[in-house]
Amino acid sequence: MQEIITNLIQASESKIILVVLDGLGGLPAKEGPYKGLTELESAHTPNLDALARSSACGLHLPVGYGITPGSGPGHLGLFGYEPKRYIIGRGILEAVGLGMEVKNTDIALRCNYATMKDGLIVDRRAGRPPTEVSRKLTERLSAEIKEIDGVKIFFAPGMEHRFAVVMRFQDPLPEDASSLNDTDPQREGMPPLKLVPQSPNAERTADIAEKLISKAVEILKTQERANYILLRGFSEPPKMQTFKEAYGLKALAIAAYPMYRGLASLIGMDSPEVKGDIDEEIEFLNAHYSEYDFFFVHIKKVDSYGEDGNFEAKMKKIEEFDRALPKILNLKPDVLIITGDHSTPSIMRSHSWHPVPVLLNSKYVLGGLSEGFSERECFKGELGVIPTTALMPLALANSGRLKKFGA
Amino acid sequence: MQEIITNLIQASESKIILVVLDGLGGLPAKEGPYKGLTELESAHTPNLDALARSSACGLHLPVGYGITPGSGPGHLGLFGYEPKRYIIGRGILEAVGLGMEVKNTDIALRCNYATMKDGLIVDRRAGRPPTEVSRKLTERLSAEIKEIDGVKIFFAPGMEHRFAVVMRFQDPLPEDASSLNDTDPQREGMPPLKLVPQSPNAERTADIAEKLISKAVEILKTQERANYILLRGFSEPPKMQTFKEAYGLKALAIAAYPMYRGLASLIGMDSPEVKGDIDEEIEFLNAHYSEYDFFFVHIKKVDSYGEDGNFEAKMKKIEEFDRALPKILNLKPDVLIITGDHSTPSIMRSHSWHPVPVLLNSKYVLGGLSEGFSERECFKGELGVIPTTALMPLALANSGRLKKFGA
Repeated sequence: MQEIITNLIQASESKIILVVLDGLGGLPAKEGPYKGLTELESAHTPNLDALARSSACGLHLPVGYGITPGSGPGHLGLFGYEPKRYIIGRGILEAVGLGMEVKNTDIALRCNYATMKDGLIVDRRAGRPPTEVSRKLTERLSAEIKEIDGVKIFFAPGMEHRFAVVMRFQDPLPEDASSLNDTDPQREGMPPLKLVPQSPNAERTADIAEKLISKAVEILKTQERANYILLRGFSEPPKMQTFKEAYGLKALAIAAYPMYRGLASLIGMDSPEVKGDIDEEIEFLNAHYSEYDFFFVHIKKVDSYGEDGNFEAKMKKIEEFDRALPKILNLKPDVLIITGDHSTPSIMRSHSWHPVPVLLNSKYVLGGLSEGFSERECFKGELGVIPTTALMPLALANSGRLKKFGA
Repeated sequence: MQEIITNLIQASESKIILVVLDGLGGLPAKEGPYKGLTELESAHTPNLDALARSSACGLHLPVGYGITPGSGPGHLGLFGYEPKRYIIGRGILEAVGLGMEVKNTDIALRCNYATMKDGLIVDRRAGRPPTEVSRKLTERLSAEIKEIDGVKIFFAPGMEHRFAVVMRFQDPLPEDASSLNDTDPQREGMPPLKLVPQSPNAERTADIAEKLISKAVEILKTQERANYILLRGFSEPPKMQTFKEAYGLKALAIAAYPMYRGLASLIGMDSPEVKGDIDEEIEFLNAHYSEYDFFFVHIKKVDSYGEDGNFEAKMKKIEEFDRALPKILNLKPDVLIITGDHSTPSIMRSHSWHPVPVLLNSKYVLGGLSEGFSERECFKGELGVIPTTALMPLALANSGRLKKFGA
């Protein structure tokens, strides 16, 4: 489908804003003052409700019926990339989540500090060192290991025993260059697993990784606990068209959390660092509105409170967005989409499989079917329940960026 | 999609009940006291209506728009197997419908008694013998033909001139081993058609079948009319994962009619014989509730009355189920789905292509969108119109049996 869309793209001066309230969809509270109502239904959202009444409303299904999406598949779908086709590997997700840049010549992996004794892994997490301690170790590795056999090596510190590594090769990688097993034996008292390339094209990667382990062990040898590193989740960025190639859109990602900037950067969106929360993000949007065609505005904490099981805080974060919404409406975008990347019902304290409410506002919608912005009102809307990947084509069509198909 | 689901399965203690009111969906009566109302709308169903109000409601489409499903595709879809991909051959369906066990080393076929004279088939149905007469003939064949060249032969009597045969080979069959034509010439006054293997792998099957005909003819030679047998519908069970392999579920089929036990046994569900109707089936469910994860409860007569064109009897059978429903609700399953395998509108006296009303009850639904359980109320529900194969993933998700897809 994306190929068909790409062939229909035509130039336009129009502007599209996609606001992602992460984990927006919810379920009714089982008790308390909001019993029977979802977070969105409980929230006082006069601006969203008014907008929903004149918008195309519906729900979107990120991966499939019953399937709970992670953040990767959730966002790829919103950007119009089929999430069952483009899989983001664990190493890549970890690297972009720690704010690392990832290019198409790169292999990324997740690493653990571990404790080795007499050739056996006696603690797979090196006693969970405090983050400020492990950060210093990672900085040292980073200072001393810059390149191995012409491959640039980048490190990013993570929480406790975790860090990420990006290997940047000089040329685009051959197929299956990241087909390598984890070295983590998964059980303590075992030696680390040997790296066994699953494809001849992974032999060079294995060689670099072996040398990385040796160099790190040499640097860490005076450490009592963090004297070894385990490697996991070798992966390459999925081979995808950039957003510009797919849709002709110059796109800006506005996200306070590195993971979402990283996901956007995988498809070539500009993803500068943004500090703050809703107000700062919308200020940033206003400041750069003339420079781009497409704006992805990511608001994280709706999901965070859902994952905490904090119904009221999730509700209040939605209300906070509602108060800020006029500052987006004042920009008068040709298309404004407000939705989530998946549902995170507070009663479940986790992502869920439920379809996600969405409103699409443009000059070219019916409207008048939903009385407000909520899961139940969206079921009455003109979009119905659609695959998440349908949203980008609808955004492009509503912004005058798609030609007719066939004569 | 089933592959993705299988990869996401996680263990759980949860219980799922799937109640299939065969042929549930209907159409409005054209006249009489229920004019303008469907069977479900006419039925007094306070328990179903209350349940629908707090459930996810919708309709499911078994095969595709406008396609009227047989019982095989209807049930495969409910079990999450794509019915356009897994085709149940006529011989297999006949055999399981007559209560025969079918294994993955088996070829099944439908047979007719016929009358042969001077090498020509003069009556393709041997004068439609009474069932009790033909049953005795089939018992005689069964007693005298137990094995041919190491292949075990099983017989099951059917109605009038019909019976079924299962050939049980010693090893799993090579591809296309059942690619054999029917011997029925379709017109009287013609010789039976010769068996011509459509593939080298079907040569042995053809040889066994020729010998089966010879042996049967020898046994039947004193019969005036039923002195020959015609063979049709050679087929093997479709190569499908078992329900346990696909979903990790230990499943029990509770069905009074052998065909539905047989369909369930094709995917490895336990399918013991159950006598009686709704009450006896629900009693059986209660008796075995601790032993399984998944329960398929099949209620046949809703469809039977629909096929008879008996609107009121179909309606009353639905009411009878409604009265029994509390005995299912008392079990407090984690997920309860109530639906049909297809629609059987009384005014059509046949299966139809119309989507089938469904309700799914669990802790994790919105609810509140449908005011009762009927075709028209289900169209207002949160499920919308979904493919039948979406129901199993939804059941698994709602019962906590699916992990997140992607990170």
